Amino acid sequence: MDDLLERLRAGLPAEALITDPDVTSSYANDMASFCAAGTPSVVVLPRTVEQVQHVMRTATALRVPVVPQGARTGLSGAANASDGCIVLSLTKMDRILEISPVDRIAVVEPGVINAVLSRAVNEHGLYYPPDPSSWEMCTIGGNIGTASGGLCCVKYGVTAEYVLGLDVVLADGRLMTTGRRTAKGVAGYDLTRLFVGSEGSLGIVVKAVLALRPQPPAQLVLAAEFDSAAAACEAVCAIMERGHTPSLLELMDRTTVHAVNAMANMGLPDSTEALLLAAFDTPDPAADLAAVGALCGAAGATQVVPADTVAESELLLQARRLSLTALETVKSATMIDDVCVPRSKLGAMIEGTAVIAEKYDLTIGICAHAGDGNTHPVVCFDHTDADESRRARESFDEIMALGLELGGTITGEHGVGVLKKEWLARELGPVGVEMQRGIKQTFDPLGLLNPGKLF
Amino acid sequence: MDDLLERLRAGLPAEALITDPDVTSSYANDMASFCAAGTPSVVVLPRTVEQVQHVMRTATALRVPVVPQGARTGLSGAANASDGCIVLSLTKMDRILEISPVDRIAVVEPGVINAVLSRAVNEHGLYYPPDPSSWEMCTIGGNIGTASGGLCCVKYGVTAEYVLGLDVVLADGRLMTTGRRTAKGVAGYDLTRLFVGSEGSLGIVVKAVLALRPQPPAQLVLAAEFDSAAAACEAVCAIMERGHTPSLLELMDRTTVHAVNAMANMGLPDSTEALLLAAFDTPDPAADLAAVGALCGAAGATQVVPADTVAESELLLQARRLSLTALETVKSATMIDDVCVPRSKLGAMIEGTAVIAEKYDLTIGICAHAGDGNTHPVVCFDHTDADESRRARESFDEIMALGLELGGTITGEHGVGVLKKEWLARELGPVGVEMQRGIKQTFDPLGLLNPGKLF
Repeated sequence: MDDLLERLRAGLPAEALITDPDVTSSYANDMASFCAAGTPSVVVLPRTVEQVQHVMRTATALRVPVVPQGARTGLSGAANASDGCIVLSLTKMDRILEISPVDRIAVVEPGVINAVLSRAVNEHGLYYPPDPSSWEMCTIGGNIGTASGGLCCVKYGVTAEYVLGLDVVLADGRLMTTGRRTAKGVAGYDLTRLFVGSEGSLGIVVKAVLALRPQPPAQLVLAAEFDSAAAACEAVCAIMERGHTPSLLELMDRTTVHAVNAMANMGLPDSTEALLLAAFDTPDPAADLAAVGALCGAAGATQVVPADTVAESELLLQARRLSLTALETVKSATMIDDVCVPRSKLGAMIEGTAVIAEKYDLTIGICAHAGDGNTHPVVCFDHTDADESRRARESFDEIMALGLELGGTITGEHGVGVLKKEWLARELGPVGVEMQRGIKQTFDPLGLLNPGKLF
Repeated sequence: MDDLLERLRAGLPAEALITDPDVTSSYANDMASFCAAGTPSVVVLPRTVEQVQHVMRTATALRVPVVPQGARTGLSGAANASDGCIVLSLTKMDRILEISPVDRIAVVEPGVINAVLSRAVNEHGLYYPPDPSSWEMCTIGGNIGTASGGLCCVKYGVTAEYVLGLDVVLADGRLMTTGRRTAKGVAGYDLTRLFVGSEGSLGIVVKAVLALRPQPPAQLVLAAEFDSAAAACEAVCAIMERGHTPSLLELMDRTTVHAVNAMANMGLPDSTEALLLAAFDTPDPAADLAAVGALCGAAGATQVVPADTVAESELLLQARRLSLTALETVKSATMIDDVCVPRSKLGAMIEGTAVIAEKYDLTIGICAHAGDGNTHPVVCFDHTDADESRRARESFDEIMALGLELGGTITGEHGVGVLKKEWLARELGPVGVEMQRGIKQTFDPLGLLNPGKLF
């Protein structure tokens, strides 16, 4: 331990090292429930690539595990410390190095906060779409590690689709550049994409070239109420089948609507079984909302409310934005699941989740990126009640099993981390796991990078 | 050899095996120049996954290399046979297994021809964007192996962005499923993307889940003539900087315009130094063409011709479609390069290529996916003239060096194959190459899959 600190100090300024256990322990966790976390030896906050290289060389020399972290807003325990590890926080590497409107790219360090980048590129008439709920806090490095999604994905895709190239410090401290800053490129295996979603287990991202889009027009939102979740899902399928391209297509179930009403008195009818929100940022959003409103009506919507202005649209979105916070008030604790199914199976997924809630006698609210088939069932439970906690965990697992049965995946955008690592093997199968482990071995032969995650 | 054939026959119907050397030799090459090809031992044309598994098990048991092939329209020698290899042609596995308008996916076998899939999904109001020039012949499996692009990429991206999941037969015959059929998913490392562009060196793709889009409106095209390539490139930058999203943005240089005129008498002015074609498939393409036409004018266009109808648009595109064929008539042979640079460097790339043409006393025509910065310099030479052939190859290499110098890549969409493997190492650097080789080793420890390609 003394040796570790001494060696780290040799290549890092004093303020980049935290050893006070009261402080280092505050870096032990991300925001996931039910995920074990160890006690770090030290937290390092490098500001340069060379400092990151020094940390990794030291870690390799002394065989000390390294847990890379962004803002620790993750929901799978992927950033949780392991005992004796070096926590490598990239939050101080937070410079936007370049924004090019002609090339439509930004070059950033990993600690840049998503919202900071989004606003900076807006000033150039550009748009960085990925918008996880935590966008005001989370970092681009964390988004890359998790392959984060958000509300925009139904039209604009996930983080992975915006990462063109990376600078990565490998486990042994060597620097590798992947990908490109061009619009296209097929030179060799796509290592860039391999790092996206790898949860810091293959190397430390120290720079990223990101693709940008032109800033679209402001979106207009429509809200539609349904007296069954099945009818709302039917509307979702009809909207997508007819070739619409909403910039957002979100669903809240009855439990979520009630929770939001209870917390914020939004005036949503208590009879609502499902609330659908659709938005368009097209040249004529009112026409698109009218068409989609008609499809909702045909699917049995009891009320359809299109916004006329951007301000009204923001009000309608408030309900969605408050969903998780509102569901957190239902009981003392929540577990947020993240199962994605083919959108044609969305109805079956929601129906099946209700059956699971009843079986385990639990409240499970669902908000969903409905257009993507990506559901977030939120299991609400009393964490001081051992039996209820056990039931919460079991229902959480059963929801994943249902997702796999319906041809889906255990994680649409939150990642595997600690929370779902047993489930990853079920989804990938033994051959897939073997190949994934082989890749891990290639990049990190000593197993020092974020050990105990993913596999 | 007898042993190989006997073992192959044990798991393949007679018609799936070709041993006649006159026929097998016709499978030796793809469409690249300057790429060595060996003599295959046998060509197999399996129709089922099990047959592919049998081939790979046999190859592994006897340590025989396997070269997977689609339609052999590739331009880098990636499908060229090696001596004594099994050529594994996937062209008979050509079924479209599913098209789902709600999930916006197609599930296909690798031998499906790009145009066949495109037309089939059109009938459901859907669109499969990737459109390499060879789309009437090339297969989806080949497109995946090469990560093919096309004219649509400036708006719709490359093949990689449409591959959601794969079934892959590994070198030892085991079957692995990667990815998903959902819109999103982050379960483990992205093996799907790793296979896209891997040129058959990691496994044999036997099934693919492809993402589809709603069919956009028919595009309208504008042609703009410039008296310098630099002015045309300035227009390209202005169009992209102003946030336009053309569905196509192509450039032809003077040499290409002259060649097309000579071949097809298209009536293009011989004074044209560069011809720019822009298209929009937006709700109001005429308005977009007007805005882009004005930008072309401001950049110095000598003539701007917007099409009023889809039929007129097709006529304007004819010139672009004929470019490669026309350039092939300039001399007895051509080498088509594929350098992609940041679009802000497009002017420098074209100017630098003209300098190289002069230095080597060669005709080099350029057509470019200008919106992507992806140039195809076509080196025209007399292949019976040893000195001219040598100069052609040297100029070809110098064009790649220029691309790298400008922050670009040696291949935007054609791949590495045999043609550019020495250059791949230059682009990736030693650490990148080491990691890529590690991945190859993980999937193909005996080095049987498409040996001698990429590295």
